[in-house]
Parts: sequence; C-alpha cells; structure tokens
Amino acid sequence: MAQAEFWCEFASSYSYPAAMRIEALAAERGVALVWRPFLLGPLFARQGWRDSPFNLYPVKGRYMWRDLERVCGALDLPLRRPDPFPQNSLLAARVALALDDATRPRFSRSVFDAEFGQGRSIDAPPTLAPMIAALGLAPAPLFGRAVEDANKAALKAQTARAMALGLPGAPCLTTADGEVFWGNDRIEQGLDWARAHPAV
Amino acid sequence: MAQAEFWCEFASSYSYPAAMRIEALAAERGVALVWRPFLLGPLFARQGWRDSPFNLYPVKGRYMWRDLERVCGALDLPLRRPDPFPQNSLLAARVALALDDATRPRFSRSVFDAEFGQGRSIDAPPTLAPMIAALGLAPAPLFGRAVEDANKAALKAQTARAMALGLPGAPCLTTADGEVFWGNDRIEQGLDWARAHPAV
Repeated sequence: MAQAEFWCEFASSYSYPAAMRIEALAAERGVALVWRPFLLGPLFARQGWRDSPFNLYPVKGRYMWRDLERVCGALDLPLRRPDPFPQNSLLAARVALALDDATRPRFSRSVFDAEFGQGRSIDAPPTLAPMIAALGLAPAPLFGRAVEDANKAALKAQTARAMALGLPGAPCLTTADGEVFWGNDRIEQGLDWARAHPAV
Repeated sequence: MAQAEFWCEFASSYSYPAAMRIEALAAERGVALVWRPFLLGPLFARQGWRDSPFNLYPVKGRYMWRDLERVCGALDLPLRRPDPFPQNSLLAARVALALDDATRPRFSRSVFDAEFGQGRSIDAPPTLAPMIAALGLAPAPLFGRAVEDANKAALKAQTARAMALGLPGAPCLTTADGEVFWGNDRIEQGLDWARAHPAV
C-alpha cells in the first residue's frame, strides 16, 4: 500500500488546515499515513531564527494571517489567532508521540482545533486532558508516559530525523522514495506522488 | 471587467512558472491582467536580507529547487538553474516597464524562458535585444528609454508601491479590493477572487 509520513508541529499555523483535511485526501487516494509530530524550534535555530519567521519578518507574518483566513474560510474552518503566537507546543508534541499511530491523528486534530479554531492555549495539562479522555484513555498515566525520558528522547530523535530529511518547515509530507512536500498547499501533490511511487 | 495586477521579479524562481501559465488562467476567468515588474531587492533589504532567502537559508533553497523541478515537470516546462542565482534583473525590469501593457507579457515570458528554461544570464543587452526584436521593436531606442531617468524613477515607484501593498515576495497577484495572493500556488485563487470582487 502507498504510504506517506505527515510531519506536523502543533505551533505551526499552516499545520492546522493540513491536519484537518489530510485524512480524507489520503483515504481518497488509498495512501496510509503516519503522523509525525516534531518541533520546529531546533530546525529554526539552525537557520538562526529564535522565533517564528512570521514574527521575525512582519511582512510575511501579516500576509500569513490574511492568507490563513482565506484558506480556512474556503474550508469552512473556524480561525482564531492564538495569543501568544507561536504557542508552546512541547507538551502536546510529547503527548501525541506517546499515543499510538491510530489515536494520534484524532488527538492532534483536537489540539489544532483548540489552538487555531478556538484560540486557546495548548501548553497546560488541563487543556489537553479532556482531549485524551475523549479518546477513551486516562489522562494522568499518559501525561506520565509523555514526560518519561524515553518519550522525550523519541521526540528529539524524531525532530533530528526531520532535520536530516531536510524539512524546511511544517507541515510536510514525506514519501517512501525520499521526496519532501512542504505546506498545506502540497498535500494533494504529495499524496499523489506517494500513490504513484509506493514503497518496494 | 474583473482586473488583477501580476507582480513579477525576473530574478524570482517561482515567478517563472507563474508567468508562463497566468495568461491562460486569467483568460479562462475573464480577468484583465496588468503585469507589474518590480525589484525584490529593496523589499528584502527591509527584512534584513542582502541576498535571496533561498541562498541565505540553504535548507529552504535546496527544497525550493527540488520543488520547482516538480512544479515545472508537471507543467512540461524546461528548467535549468541559472548561475549565478539570483540573476541581476535590473535591466530586464527596466525594459519591461518601458514597454506598453500589451507587449510586456510576451517580453517577460521570453526573459523567464531564457533564464530558467535555458539557464542563460539576463543582465546584458545582447541577450535581451532579440527578444525585443521579436516584438517587432527596435532594441536600441528601447534600451535608451529603459535607462532614462523617468523610467528608472517609474521602476522605483512601482517597487515602492509593491512595498506599500505589503507584498512578501514574488510572484504576487493583487486585486482591486486590496487582497494580496503570494506565490505561483495562489494564481488560481487570486484570479477567482478578482472575478468575484470586480472593481466598482
């Protein structure tokens, strides 16, 4: 079966519409997805950025927020700008990684909806606990697993792999043959590529 | 009639596929286009960039060249990477601006084809002269007009207007109601917007 990996960062604005629409697009094409939460911070730091480029370069930032309004408007997705932007996404990423591949997408969409659909902060356990409970899981043990050394190391390793793959930002799709597709705009193209170039 | 302005920079890689396909897309939608050549240099300088971001940030640059290969491949457009990148686009922009609205698009496509389709340098009159002749115009007087003070000032004013409109890069489409659409990826969306929001 054709496969692709979906790299998202919970603080990333364009990861929101991508996360909300990618499952249906992958299903239409028969592409199996694995969601790979990772952290943009270390990738940005290597470029010399200590903040989101959308904050460092206000012309890009102003454009992005208007563009995102139009993108979400066309998808009938609510959009509320989180404050501060970017949000601290470390806990959400650790929790997402501690989940299995089957439950991670639903949790991830809950986080994106809270953050960009409702404008809520995502950095505290009380925000994330009901999303975990909605999966039928007990929040406390999951938070415990999320901050274990092994899970922290796994998130670091996943972020290192993102860097090794050459991801320039988030969201990205990567395919079995090593192609990288960056941005909410490239989801369809990346999935089409994955279908046309299945793993051997 | 619905109208839009197409802002392109001859040194800009993604302006190449946009320039090659925009006329057909605009005609399909009944949108009248005016081509606005401008210079990215002053916009980039204001962000603190003294070179193309694709050179300053090599991870983005490597991604862009691969992405552009795929984009051009899907459009059956030849792609040869010009060396150096970015090219010095000042003369081409001045010549394009000195042309009238009706001849500017054809000249502009010739420049993009030479640069990104054939990998040629675009900074010298001998490269541009045959493109001007192909329009049925005499190259020498046009080069003369291109470097007159009035035309130099017009290019500066056009670039200042690009900055005032908040263009974050090139290519861009702008509409009568003040919307900005950035990137080859946004051409269809920008033209659809222009059609839905004609000037009053």
